[in-house]
Amino acid sequence: MIKAAIIAIGDELLIGETINSNSAWLGKELTKLGITINTSVTISDNHSSIIDTLEKLSEINDIIITTGGLGPTKDDLTKKAIASFFKVGMHEDEITRLHLIEYFNRRGREITDLHFEQALLPSCSKALKNNIGTAPGIFTKKNKRLYFNLPGVPREMKSIFEDNIVSILNNFKYSLVEDFYHYETIYTTGIFESDIAKRISHLEEEYESVKFAYLPSYSGVRLRLGILNSKLVKNKTILNDLIIKIQSLLHTFIIEENSQLLNAFHEYFIKNNWTLSVAESCTGGGLGSLLTELKGSSKILQGGFIVYSNNAKKNLLDVNETTLEKYGAVSEQTAIELANNCRKKMGTDFAISITGIAGPDGGSTKKPVGTVWIGISDSTKTKATKFVFLKNREANRELSKFTALSLLYRKLKYNIEI
Amino acid sequence: MIKAAIIAIGDELLIGETINSNSAWLGKELTKLGITINTSVTISDNHSSIIDTLEKLSEINDIIITTGGLGPTKDDLTKKAIASFFKVGMHEDEITRLHLIEYFNRRGREITDLHFEQALLPSCSKALKNNIGTAPGIFTKKNKRLYFNLPGVPREMKSIFEDNIVSILNNFKYSLVEDFYHYETIYTTGIFESDIAKRISHLEEEYESVKFAYLPSYSGVRLRLGILNSKLVKNKTILNDLIIKIQSLLHTFIIEENSQLLNAFHEYFIKNNWTLSVAESCTGGGLGSLLTELKGSSKILQGGFIVYSNNAKKNLLDVNETTLEKYGAVSEQTAIELANNCRKKMGTDFAISITGIAGPDGGSTKKPVGTVWIGISDSTKTKATKFVFLKNREANRELSKFTALSLLYRKLKYNIEI
Repeated sequence: MIKAAIIAIGDELLIGETINSNSAWLGKELTKLGITINTSVTISDNHSSIIDTLEKLSEINDIIITTGGLGPTKDDLTKKAIASFFKVGMHEDEITRLHLIEYFNRRGREITDLHFEQALLPSCSKALKNNIGTAPGIFTKKNKRLYFNLPGVPREMKSIFEDNIVSILNNFKYSLVEDFYHYETIYTTGIFESDIAKRISHLEEEYESVKFAYLPSYSGVRLRLGILNSKLVKNKTILNDLIIKIQSLLHTFIIEENSQLLNAFHEYFIKNNWTLSVAESCTGGGLGSLLTELKGSSKILQGGFIVYSNNAKKNLLDVNETTLEKYGAVSEQTAIELANNCRKKMGTDFAISITGIAGPDGGSTKKPVGTVWIGISDSTKTKATKFVFLKNREANRELSKFTALSLLYRKLKYNIEI
Repeated sequence: MIKAAIIAIGDELLIGETINSNSAWLGKELTKLGITINTSVTISDNHSSIIDTLEKLSEINDIIITTGGLGPTKDDLTKKAIASFFKVGMHEDEITRLHLIEYFNRRGREITDLHFEQALLPSCSKALKNNIGTAPGIFTKKNKRLYFNLPGVPREMKSIFEDNIVSILNNFKYSLVEDFYHYETIYTTGIFESDIAKRISHLEEEYESVKFAYLPSYSGVRLRLGILNSKLVKNKTILNDLIIKIQSLLHTFIIEENSQLLNAFHEYFIKNNWTLSVAESCTGGGLGSLLTELKGSSKILQGGFIVYSNNAKKNLLDVNETTLEKYGAVSEQTAIELANNCRKKMGTDFAISITGIAGPDGGSTKKPVGTVWIGISDSTKTKATKFVFLKNREANRELSKFTALSLLYRKLKYNIEI
């Protein structure tokens, strides 16, 4: 196994002012590459902590990645600690210097000596180009180990990793005799982890060389399949064979685009030139916000209505007074009127409505917290489906949004009657 | 200084399937109590990793807290590792046993032997009652060190910490001769970190015994002031004296409720019985979603309009065709018409509109990516303010939402002309 350690540097992480999402992201990417994360540690922004931790983790890991502490103000500290650890001095990287000049010129900003310090690196290290910021990544190979130092800003960290490090790690992997995992992922939607297991668990026994992982999230369950040593052609065939079997067993729960639900939904709608509008009660605009996360979403989402109060439901989307009185705001009838009237007012191909009891208050025996009706309307008909999610407000709102996307996606893709 | 280590146990954290928010939360809470977080580490769900890490971190810390691995299925592993580390066997905790029986009875569920295993603890340890779940926390005092083992489910972890551990730590703190930090936090909004520094940095020299930390986020900058050894009355006076000076220097940028912007906004609107509606373009419903995150928000947000397309702006909120043609969708005039018409249609006390270029595409020299107009309307007038945020889509959308809240909050609280 190829082992990696991730070190996040920064007091703001230790004291919880910032939640460390970098380590999770790196963990995911390294796992995809078949590398085993051995340790992930967060340490203080100081010279001796950095050196001590590098020393300890070098003993047992092949790859060590640090994030944080490379900005212009904290430059000295972290880079000097790295240089001390390697027992070398600093040198100026000419390409980084030119990149800095070009970066500031393009923005019409003045460049100062402080900025040029970003071109200083430990003399045994190479710069990894940062295409969206000024602090380069740092790469050092020593004693058959790879060391990478990345800035803490997540998008810069990700960009340097994707643009530079993936290829270095792939070359490194194949240069070793050690085994590593090759992974494939199947994205599902609209099905619980336990129901996936019911359908495919017999394959876990049949394919005992494959490691199965069920990875649930609000947007669906990812199924990750890992097999050792993908260099062998035989193993790749086993994996492909298994994937075909799973695809047929999970058929209409598979996301065909092989990506997260939101991205798949986006791509599918763009491809078909479809438009959408939303009518949201308990999610308060969250579905609209989710649908506009990706660039280019103006081609899909035209707009919608936040109908949090009963008055808004009546005044903005003409829900009948009697519907609200007789069935309540959280009901099939209300969800249907919301979706249908929303589509008509917006002139879109489809409309989604969401009305539910997010909690923690407002539940009853008949309609407990977590009860959510989701309506879907197209030019031929409007239908609503009931869900009973959880007790937790945040979870209920997240599940409502993603379940709505899942319903419409599966209805269109697989002609599922909802 | 009292030093603590946080150990998060779980493969799902290492491979990045779950972002570790527990360690950040614990870091924040321990910091509030004046305890210094020395290390935060994530390790694999296995016997020897757990023991090795406990051994290493015991050498240099007074307090060690683990999260994760206490659920009924993983019970044996983690608890056995803890028992091995302390070199003891297991015993059954009678109170936990009774709690389990009561917990399952109340829910009408059958209790099995697997469930009773949750009452087994290392024989040198005490159970910490879990008021919302079945796995108790575990507390051990050994060689003047405190060890706490908590479940990984965030709300159970938090509940056990708040209900049991805070008081144990406070007693421990005062039983030691060591110094610890006492912290006070000032919440600001509508002002950059650098501008706060300009106004108050002279106080950093004047009050050299106080540690200043500027903690920026999308919702505003928190200013954290720390002073050693709060047991001395003198130091508390120094801190109070400093806080009064800072409050007067930052006056209208202070959040009076002394909490995060969203909570303060919510509380202020509830107190005044005010209603609000929103008209959102580039945020796509995100402001509505944010405003409905807290329970009880139906008293404030009545609803709103997601006007992502120009047609939606015209059809839903009657923005003039000529306004859009002459000034564009991202303009003062459009923002004003959106906010004013939204308020009138919804019949609310206030309305907020947001229209901007979130990016990454759609910018021009005159209106670069990040240009956002925010309109605010009440019964006397409607005004819009221009902002130029960043190049990043996600950041621009987050900043738009929080800046809108900040504008309206400061306008009402301090009568700021915007």
